[in-house]
Amino acid sequence: MARKNETKKTTAQCGSVTLPAESGQEKVVLDLVRRWGADAIRDSDGTQLSPELLELDRDIYSTICLVRADQQYPREHPEHIPQKFLMSAPVTAASSEVTIDPMSAYFRQKYEINKKADPKKWWEVIDRTSGEVVDPANWEFDTETRKVTIRNAQPFHVYTVNFLVHQIWDSTSMYNHLVNNWTKPHVICTEPYPPEARKHLMEYFDKWLAEHPDTRVVRLTTLAYHFTLDSDPTGADKYRDWLGYLDTITTEALEDFAREKGYRLRSEDFVDEGYYNATYRVPSPKYLDWMAFVQRFVIGFGKELVDKIHAAGKKAGIFWGDHWIGAEFYSPGFQEIGIDVNIGAVEGGVALRRLSDTPGPQTKEARFYPYFFPDVFHPGGNPLTESIANWTRIRRALHRKMVDRIGYGGYLSLAARFPKFIEHVTTICNEFREIQEQTRKTPSWKAPIKVAVLNAWGKLRSWQENTSKAEKFHVKRPDIIELGGSNLLECLSGLPVEVQFLSFADVERDGIPRDFSVIINDGDAGSAWSGGRHWANPKVAAAVRAFIHRGGGFLGVQEPAAFQHQGRFFQLADVMGVEKETGNSNLSAPVRFQVVKGHFVRDDKFTALDFYADKNYVFCHDPKTQVLWADKTGRHVHLAANRFGKGRSLYMAGLPYSLENSRLLLRALFWLARKESALKKWFCENLNMDCAAYPKRRRYVVFNNTGEKQSTVLYDGKGNKSRVTLKPYESKWFSMG
Amino acid sequence: MARKNETKKTTAQCGSVTLPAESGQEKVVLDLVRRWGADAIRDSDGTQLSPELLELDRDIYSTICLVRADQQYPREHPEHIPQKFLMSAPVTAASSEVTIDPMSAYFRQKYEINKKADPKKWWEVIDRTSGEVVDPANWEFDTETRKVTIRNAQPFHVYTVNFLVHQIWDSTSMYNHLVNNWTKPHVICTEPYPPEARKHLMEYFDKWLAEHPDTRVVRLTTLAYHFTLDSDPTGADKYRDWLGYLDTITTEALEDFAREKGYRLRSEDFVDEGYYNATYRVPSPKYLDWMAFVQRFVIGFGKELVDKIHAAGKKAGIFWGDHWIGAEFYSPGFQEIGIDVNIGAVEGGVALRRLSDTPGPQTKEARFYPYFFPDVFHPGGNPLTESIANWTRIRRALHRKMVDRIGYGGYLSLAARFPKFIEHVTTICNEFREIQEQTRKTPSWKAPIKVAVLNAWGKLRSWQENTSKAEKFHVKRPDIIELGGSNLLECLSGLPVEVQFLSFADVERDGIPRDFSVIINDGDAGSAWSGGRHWANPKVAAAVRAFIHRGGGFLGVQEPAAFQHQGRFFQLADVMGVEKETGNSNLSAPVRFQVVKGHFVRDDKFTALDFYADKNYVFCHDPKTQVLWADKTGRHVHLAANRFGKGRSLYMAGLPYSLENSRLLLRALFWLARKESALKKWFCENLNMDCAAYPKRRRYVVFNNTGEKQSTVLYDGKGNKSRVTLKPYESKWFSMG
Repeated sequence: MARKNETKKTTAQCGSVTLPAESGQEKVVLDLVRRWGADAIRDSDGTQLSPELLELDRDIYSTICLVRADQQYPREHPEHIPQKFLMSAPVTAASSEVTIDPMSAYFRQKYEINKKADPKKWWEVIDRTSGEVVDPANWEFDTETRKVTIRNAQPFHVYTVNFLVHQIWDSTSMYNHLVNNWTKPHVICTEPYPPEARKHLMEYFDKWLAEHPDTRVVRLTTLAYHFTLDSDPTGADKYRDWLGYLDTITTEALEDFAREKGYRLRSEDFVDEGYYNATYRVPSPKYLDWMAFVQRFVIGFGKELVDKIHAAGKKAGIFWGDHWIGAEFYSPGFQEIGIDVNIGAVEGGVALRRLSDTPGPQTKEARFYPYFFPDVFHPGGNPLTESIANWTRIRRALHRKMVDRIGYGGYLSLAARFPKFIEHVTTICNEFREIQEQTRKTPSWKAPIKVAVLNAWGKLRSWQENTSKAEKFHVKRPDIIELGGSNLLECLSGLPVEVQFLSFADVERDGIPRDFSVIINDGDAGSAWSGGRHWANPKVAAAVRAFIHRGGGFLGVQEPAAFQHQGRFFQLADVMGVEKETGNSNLSAPVRFQVVKGHFVRDDKFTALDFYADKNYVFCHDPKTQVLWADKTGRHVHLAANRFGKGRSLYMAGLPYSLENSRLLLRALFWLARKESALKKWFCENLNMDCAAYPKRRRYVVFNNTGEKQSTVLYDGKGNKSRVTLKPYESKWFSMG
Repeated sequence: MARKNETKKTTAQCGSVTLPAESGQEKVVLDLVRRWGADAIRDSDGTQLSPELLELDRDIYSTICLVRADQQYPREHPEHIPQKFLMSAPVTAASSEVTIDPMSAYFRQKYEINKKADPKKWWEVIDRTSGEVVDPANWEFDTETRKVTIRNAQPFHVYTVNFLVHQIWDSTSMYNHLVNNWTKPHVICTEPYPPEARKHLMEYFDKWLAEHPDTRVVRLTTLAYHFTLDSDPTGADKYRDWLGYLDTITTEALEDFAREKGYRLRSEDFVDEGYYNATYRVPSPKYLDWMAFVQRFVIGFGKELVDKIHAAGKKAGIFWGDHWIGAEFYSPGFQEIGIDVNIGAVEGGVALRRLSDTPGPQTKEARFYPYFFPDVFHPGGNPLTESIANWTRIRRALHRKMVDRIGYGGYLSLAARFPKFIEHVTTICNEFREIQEQTRKTPSWKAPIKVAVLNAWGKLRSWQENTSKAEKFHVKRPDIIELGGSNLLECLSGLPVEVQFLSFADVERDGIPRDFSVIINDGDAGSAWSGGRHWANPKVAAAVRAFIHRGGGFLGVQEPAAFQHQGRFFQLADVMGVEKETGNSNLSAPVRFQVVKGHFVRDDKFTALDFYADKNYVFCHDPKTQVLWADKTGRHVHLAANRFGKGRSLYMAGLPYSLENSRLLLRALFWLARKESALKKWFCENLNMDCAAYPKRRRYVVFNNTGEKQSTVLYDGKGNKSRVTLKPYESKWFSMG
């Protein structure tokens, strides 16, 4: 075993950390600013920084969400309150007349029917049994009862009403009222699209800038449109899409769209049978057109704000949340806005990479969880456990792609009641600064493997969680839809490989670029993540096959390349050697198999591999397929390897995040890339530990991802092995000697 | 508790039982004929009955399968060997030229390419990536190499060849060679469609009749076309559809069909992307047309044979197996054939009801399993256990609808080596005769509940197993596809309710007749059993809703009424109050629920209810839905009750056969029919026991379905309760007193 040179800790005690201020809690704030070494203080909406805080001479971030800043304007101009299309609850007609209360399924404090826009022009009543739109002559909206009555209905057909509402309570404000017991007046937003409203907002912003001379960074939260969050009659979550463009509707914009595109969008183009173009779904061309239209508006609106910020001598930061729709960090026009600081909420490795991989010259600041709010910081709450779990996953990802700053949000006074948590965050801040110090932000070593994650969204939604049908059944709180998403990405976020996201449109246009080693396709059948109808596009299927045939790797997870077409459900069944039984071929015999144990991919100290699948109905149809893992009956395939031309493929039933599964994924990528012999370059034999090398700094780090002491044989990049033993969660730096 | 009057056993020692003869085993046969009380002996193909057997003066059944009787004719007329379309294994083109060996996926001893029928006219080469048929100018079949070469192929598209073969080895003969080690020459069949072949077969049959003067019943096995059974290169099962019409192809019949129907069928209409119109699939209109065409031919052919049999003073029996395609017992023309005895293979309650419920005046004879063949009757084999399990299920069904006779098949000499089995069958024969004696074939009491099982096949495939996608994963033997099918029907077969089978076409035409109480729809999404696209037919959906709304019951099982259409996957989600998550609505919150324990349906001594479902992704969307059972996480709905208008509905995730599940189904039907108070009329409190009442004979029977002693409180139809205790599997008869 070779000698190791541990590097000295030389961490700066201050820097790269942003904290929120809190009125009336100056002492607490001062104390935590010092302990955590914060060099910036965030002055939230309405908070005035005290003289003591100003004296600290830290950078001051001031937050503004312009569309919800001025509460007087929308109250005086109710026509400029944001709008959206909703679909009523479906109602089954028991006779030829049926009455529908469009609002019955929604929270009446949040929405108000738009009665100015002619219902006969903008609404649609749809027979959901036949799929036909009901002739407007056959229905009436009664402005008194606010109900729709349909005449000449077909008995026992189901009817819905698509209707237009104003949203009279901002979703974030409502969340804080209901979950965090806020009692302030309800926040109402202003719709920025109509020129009159936009003009007012700009004037308001000029005034705001003038009133914030001490502000160094204007933190926009965010620009124009809130992500979609609808509420049921009790105020609980009904529908939530963090990436949804449904709160972007004005009749003015719809008219402009029609002029520009030459076709009109209908209410049903948004309502989408009640599925609301959820990000899970393969996006329709019309929805993509609308997204592009909204993005162009938001970019122009955002640029106007940022230009004002720069003219005032300040920097512009943008927070990836709340009203961020239309300003996606990976969208083609985002750089035009001129933002200086990208701020992202980060709860794990995927979210960290979502931020750290963003293109552009922006400073990248990760706002960590838990947020200091009563939903976690209440007597009996356990912020420490959540924070440790988050940090462990974030650290894995940080060592693959760094960010520039970290920060926290919420009420410091709440956090201060949890001394162990305070101590733990002190460690995080110091460790973050140590990483910066040791690496000087030089890139970490990567294996010679470049991975493309292929889905319908591609680069636009890089490192976006792949919400699956399982999400609905992971309910943790009765009032909130909490989404986890694909855990394969969490495994991937901490691996030393290059990762890019490709869309089917990219592949159709350009094929698979030669520099990729492995394509991953991971998702439920029919979803944007798996790809749905795109797999019936011969150009896509042929391009992916060509890539594999000439030596590429394909990793299909869950229901990869799945679309029922021409006798196959898995369109790449020929590549993968496995197919999913949906019943159509249940009378055909599968290939009988024995699970193969001696294979590079599973040749590690695995004790608890878990593919989040029991009966997944995947069978083997190619006798040369090697099944590496099956369900307990030995019939359903959970992991299978195959060869195709010069290339290789692996099927996995699913990949929840765990250290074992992360290691499995690493081995899978090396095998798929035909680089097995290169695995043990920078490598910890103990799969509970990781290492990262920074060649430009000639340093490397080894870290322990668990709450127990761990010891490993370390491969140091030159073929030398040595032993490293670390305390729980510890990381240790070494020079390359 | 009331007094019970046990009736005397007065069973005839002989009658209602058919046994096979066996050459050279006269003593064994004689012994078993006497022990089992057989009144008929089956003289299988080629067996000559000995004088001793003839002296017994039993009825003689002689078996003939006419299309495979004469082995000389097809060898001399190879153009009259049966034909079919097969699809080659899919081959992925790696360049613009690709060569396919059509036979590579098939057993070469079984099929021979039809080289006379012009491939360019009858075959199709299909690009399975684009779905396009390849221009015949771009491919050639080489009659020397027997391979197809495609030119101008699209690289990395997948190609298949639909081709026409003669089947040069009968499927049943092949099965017996490979499984039961037969060594006789391979049987080759004659295709009866061409007039010349038909003429020959009729002459052969005249001669055969003349040569069988002692025969009392001609047992046809069967008429014209074998069910579909294709074999992979090793001879193992590749595809098996007991109801498939794929072995019915001649170019003559295809030409006649085109003339009659005005449109031509293509090879692809049979190949069906490689799914071969499996019975599982919702049948296409073209396939239904072909079935009707084949049925008309087979009925005419069968009637010609039966007329000859009757003219010879004999009776005609028909065995539901082997070459029975086109002569389905429930098909509209079946009665025209003039058959006297329907013989069905019966392994459980579903198969028994399939036979006993057949319309028409035929004598109904059940041939029980296990068949006396070496696959079961080998040293170490256990025919006894299989027979007990079968008989227990059959007896439940017999008491709902009787048959006239029972029988066995195979080699008696093999059975004779298992004395406990012999003894057990003696019991079965005696118990069967006792039922006949006690009931005199009068009908048993039924609850005032009439159930319709609704699927795409309806009456034609009454009591046909609902093969599900799970079938493929129940592999018991590597060489054979063994199908079990829906176990809900097995539960249902023994319940005292009226059952009929309805098709969607019936419902579209007539609605749901008023005399039904409950509709059951049970199957995988997209299957013929669930209904697939039929649920997007507004007439069907509205008729079913109307039935329920006016007071009917709906029992939806597995994926009922499932078809993605207009924002719903379960089209009757409004009725059932539950919906299945396929991902499209994963961002919408479900209704949160608590499992309701106090409900009539689950109010019994259940300890092991099993819905054959773990994560089934079914959620509750109607707050008034009562969830009665969920998976272990409490999120996935396994049993849920709802109300709709005056009617009721239940959703069940699945219903494997067990005594508990049978009881659950009984309670479900009473609840759905709104007849809860009528449940305990004829009723055993102990769910391991059953009773059946025969009002016309003023007798009733109680039986024990388990291998343990059981005791129950019995409700005797008049409100009296009494206790009955029975030995393992025992049944006891009582008079109504």
